Amino acid sequence: MAGARRIRVQVAYDGTAYHGWQTQPGLPTVQQTIEEVLSGIEGKPVQLAGSGRTDAGVHAIGQVAAFTLENPIPCMNLRKAINRLLPEDIRIMTVEEVEADFHPRFDAVAKTYEYKIWRSEICPPMQRRWVHHHPYPLDEGALIAAASVLEGEHDFTAFAAADDRDEKGGSKVRTIFSSEAWREGELLVYRVRGSGFLKHMVRNIVGALLQVGCGNASREELRHRLTPGCGIRPGPRAPARGLCLISVEYPVSLTPSGSSE
Amino acid sequence: MAGARRIRVQVAYDGTAYHGWQTQPGLPTVQQTIEEVLSGIEGKPVQLAGSGRTDAGVHAIGQVAAFTLENPIPCMNLRKAINRLLPEDIRIMTVEEVEADFHPRFDAVAKTYEYKIWRSEICPPMQRRWVHHHPYPLDEGALIAAASVLEGEHDFTAFAAADDRDEKGGSKVRTIFSSEAWREGELLVYRVRGSGFLKHMVRNIVGALLQVGCGNASREELRHRLTPGCGIRPGPRAPARGLCLISVEYPVSLTPSGSSE
Repeated sequence: MAGARRIRVQVAYDGTAYHGWQTQPGLPTVQQTIEEVLSGIEGKPVQLAGSGRTDAGVHAIGQVAAFTLENPIPCMNLRKAINRLLPEDIRIMTVEEVEADFHPRFDAVAKTYEYKIWRSEICPPMQRRWVHHHPYPLDEGALIAAASVLEGEHDFTAFAAADDRDEKGGSKVRTIFSSEAWREGELLVYRVRGSGFLKHMVRNIVGALLQVGCGNASREELRHRLTPGCGIRPGPRAPARGLCLISVEYPVSLTPSGSSE
Repeated sequence: MAGARRIRVQVAYDGTAYHGWQTQPGLPTVQQTIEEVLSGIEGKPVQLAGSGRTDAGVHAIGQVAAFTLENPIPCMNLRKAINRLLPEDIRIMTVEEVEADFHPRFDAVAKTYEYKIWRSEICPPMQRRWVHHHPYPLDEGALIAAASVLEGEHDFTAFAAADDRDEKGGSKVRTIFSSEAWREGELLVYRVRGSGFLKHMVRNIVGALLQVGCGNASREELRHRLTPGCGIRPGPRAPARGLCLISVEYPVSLTPSGSSE
């Protein structure tokens, strides 16, 4: 593959119309939609690797993905070409050349997600696609106070999907660097930054925080769920539409300075 | 019609999926969608009068409409009932009882529209439904300076659709109270408040302002278009998706204080 380049892209998408990130036969997904465009540009199949999956209906402003290309098109023109061919609910925000062995999943050191809850009785049409509408009574102070319980290195088995695959050597231990909730106008916003996340983990955390807000669980019960072997199964998962992947971080050594834009 | 009440509602909608406000056989429209819900609640056909039409794809956060209802349901419950039955891209924001002869179109004294132009190269998926994406070179200073030319009482024939119906006694004279454009991050925003607007008038004004920004017309040529009998036909109309009806104003005497919410 003479002249093949490894290309890293930052991807934003409105997940409403997609069955999540990962390619599934017969269903529209973000990965597959981008792969088809890239394959058209390259003239042969191109495989796209993402930093991780997002569920059906989940959005992203900072998903990171990578692919290998022989076509010598400059990064700036490549971005234009891809965006011209993509549907407008998916946009490539940046394109940059990286080391040949860059892998968006294995090289990631942190990810940040945000979950938005619309609190007032009526959810405006212009907000509806990006928020979970929850106009019911909620002890927001209790929910906000409980959020920090998740911080630190914990076994998140009680927040993983039943069918979660053990991608990191079977361990369900992850480190949460920050876990915060706050009010912003009519929105209750939850933001979490961690070393990695299990399948459905953020939505299960938000579901558990909503249980605290509803008075169905305490801060201490939430803490107990982080005890290895506690045997507690995740409660109701918060809806996908409120969730957005904000950013994926890589070691500074993997951040190129040259051909980016 | 014993006990019939006149009800005024403020309506917000994402116009993307609708062929405009006004009922048209065989096409989804905002008016018809709300009328079907109201008729279901009333148990017989209910007619909805709007403050005016909006074109296919145009949005609203402050459209005003009215209808007459015999059902004695309190306003607060009525709002809940309507919103429960409407699709989530249409919301009834307020419900209030008004005088029996209130008419949202004939009683309106002012309307405000906003038009949003996204200026940077990539239009984020979360903005795409509400903006016109125009990343091309534009003399924004010239466009902003030209906006105020529209202010005052003028003959807007040169900004009306060819098939505009003469709803106010044949006259195409309207008064624009304010006409302003400004930059707001990546957005170029145009806001206009006037006594009333002809069919396509705001989109034709924005189209003309874009011509000024592109250097294809001057502030003086824009002014000349307001001369009665100038014979100039509207230039390219700005796309519907950037336009939003912000508010409709009524005389203070028609603003109820009692049963509103």
